[in-house]
Amino acid sequence: MICVLAGGVGAARLLTGLVRIVAPGDITVIVNVGDDIVIHGLHISPDLDTITYTLADQVDPERGWGLRDETWRAMDMVARYGGIDWFNLGDRDLGTHLYRTQRLTEGAPLSVVTAEIARAWDLGLTLLPVTDDPLRTRVTVVDPDAEREVGFQEWFVQRRHAVPVTAIRVVGAAEASPAPGVLDALAEAEAVLIAPSNPLVSIGPLLAVTEVADAVRAGRDRTVAVSPLVAGAALKGPADRLMADLGHDPSVTGVARLYRELAATLVIDEADATLAGTVEAEGMAAVVTRTVMTDPYVAAELSRTALASVGIETAS
Amino acid sequence: MICVLAGGVGAARLLTGLVRIVAPGDITVIVNVGDDIVIHGLHISPDLDTITYTLADQVDPERGWGLRDETWRAMDMVARYGGIDWFNLGDRDLGTHLYRTQRLTEGAPLSVVTAEIARAWDLGLTLLPVTDDPLRTRVTVVDPDAEREVGFQEWFVQRRHAVPVTAIRVVGAAEASPAPGVLDALAEAEAVLIAPSNPLVSIGPLLAVTEVADAVRAGRDRTVAVSPLVAGAALKGPADRLMADLGHDPSVTGVARLYRELAATLVIDEADATLAGTVEAEGMAAVVTRTVMTDPYVAAELSRTALASVGIETAS
Repeated sequence: MICVLAGGVGAARLLTGLVRIVAPGDITVIVNVGDDIVIHGLHISPDLDTITYTLADQVDPERGWGLRDETWRAMDMVARYGGIDWFNLGDRDLGTHLYRTQRLTEGAPLSVVTAEIARAWDLGLTLLPVTDDPLRTRVTVVDPDAEREVGFQEWFVQRRHAVPVTAIRVVGAAEASPAPGVLDALAEAEAVLIAPSNPLVSIGPLLAVTEVADAVRAGRDRTVAVSPLVAGAALKGPADRLMADLGHDPSVTGVARLYRELAATLVIDEADATLAGTVEAEGMAAVVTRTVMTDPYVAAELSRTALASVGIETAS
Repeated sequence: MICVLAGGVGAARLLTGLVRIVAPGDITVIVNVGDDIVIHGLHISPDLDTITYTLADQVDPERGWGLRDETWRAMDMVARYGGIDWFNLGDRDLGTHLYRTQRLTEGAPLSVVTAEIARAWDLGLTLLPVTDDPLRTRVTVVDPDAEREVGFQEWFVQRRHAVPVTAIRVVGAAEASPAPGVLDALAEAEAVLIAPSNPLVSIGPLLAVTEVADAVRAGRDRTVAVSPLVAGAALKGPADRLMADLGHDPSVTGVARLYRELAATLVIDEADATLAGTVEAEGMAAVVTRTVMTDPYVAAELSRTALASVGIETAS
């Protein structure tokens, strides 16, 4: 069984490749819920939904999130009332949030609801929120004169992650227990893949749950991370600026410093081949390959290379 | 100022007429919230919305509730997940519920949110929920062998009010305070109109709030009710069967027995002219006129007749 630590878009792309080389039934994905938000009374799980919609081949290809063939009639009405309209929710997408919220209200844990939604889309693989407990990433931003702590989505969507960040905090991490199946998956996995998601705000909240971080560290030899940075830049999202803001080197070297206790190997892009030596100097094996997932075939080859680096051979 | 006690569809129809003969700024409508429901995490106020949408000329003319030009894409997704899909919510309509729920979550009372929504539709009149406190009508049904108490919408929508009813209970009425403005409106009104809504489950929950019932009774001489029954039948909805189930005569005579302590006058339809004497024998003045509101002009004439019966003359 292969276990994947996942954020949103980057992880979803990698998974479109992984399911081509590993049977979905042998894949367990542990997903960030630190950027979940309750808005309009609805529980939204953006990373879970991005992965679900992507693997169901329903994601909007332009936006990279939400559903294709979407309409925005409910949000148009919210705007008419002068309501909160910076967090855009499509009409079809709303159905997912209505269902999730109703089930949570009935007392179903998020992991159970997540499995129900994954089943409705015939995903085949196991999708687990890292925890059923509330976990909320909060970001201290300079806004614009004074520092102010806001919720993840207030930074990411409302401010379009265009303001300097001085701190990140994962509220609820100390009290959160791993969701059922998370520790078993980490313990039993032949390999653990850390997806090319933002290390600080996508993978970070998973590791903020102490038992999860301990379990990943215990399997360091069979854990391989894929760098989300290519030539010092994030392909999508603010990982590069965020790392710089918070004093990390925004490069594969900086990524290696964040991951070296967790993973034996870092997969880096060909564009960063000259940095392989510094990655190894940080204590990780460096594997150089193509990491820009322009299509699922590249994602499949990237997955194959990552798995091979920890000794898992897959048929081509 | 004219005050109207209102349920949903029948009251909305009457109001389309009343606003043609009384300046909207001089109308205050006190609306039932006993059939409010929280579903999918959203706070739905069906009677408030029916009145708002009707007066905004946005109501779907076929259904009599919800918005015209509606789509159902969110509910299609809920159905895909196997979620609760018997309470149909259109995509545009959802925008109203999203806005209301977000505002309630922020701590705004329902009366404030109701005013905001009414303003967004330029209604002009004052729309008040009878209370800002939770008020929930519950119905004991025979389902199908044993008695069982269910929420109002589980009876009305899910079971299509097609099962016998043995009891009605308004939970929260004893603890509920009238919303700000309700008692003032009742005290200051030149006339109080009881709309042709279901006496037991639309007007009943308003009167279950003790201070509201007391205030209506105190103004009995200037209060006039319009019978929701015509020739022993409800024009829409289950008022006739419900009255029979609960031991009331399903006729204008039965309506008079329910309202005689609250209102001096009962407006009944020409089809019930022969019952005027029995209505008067119950202690109410009977006014016979056309009450089937096929268009707003009929509704205006009905309003005019009702107001005249308590001494308010309006220009024609």
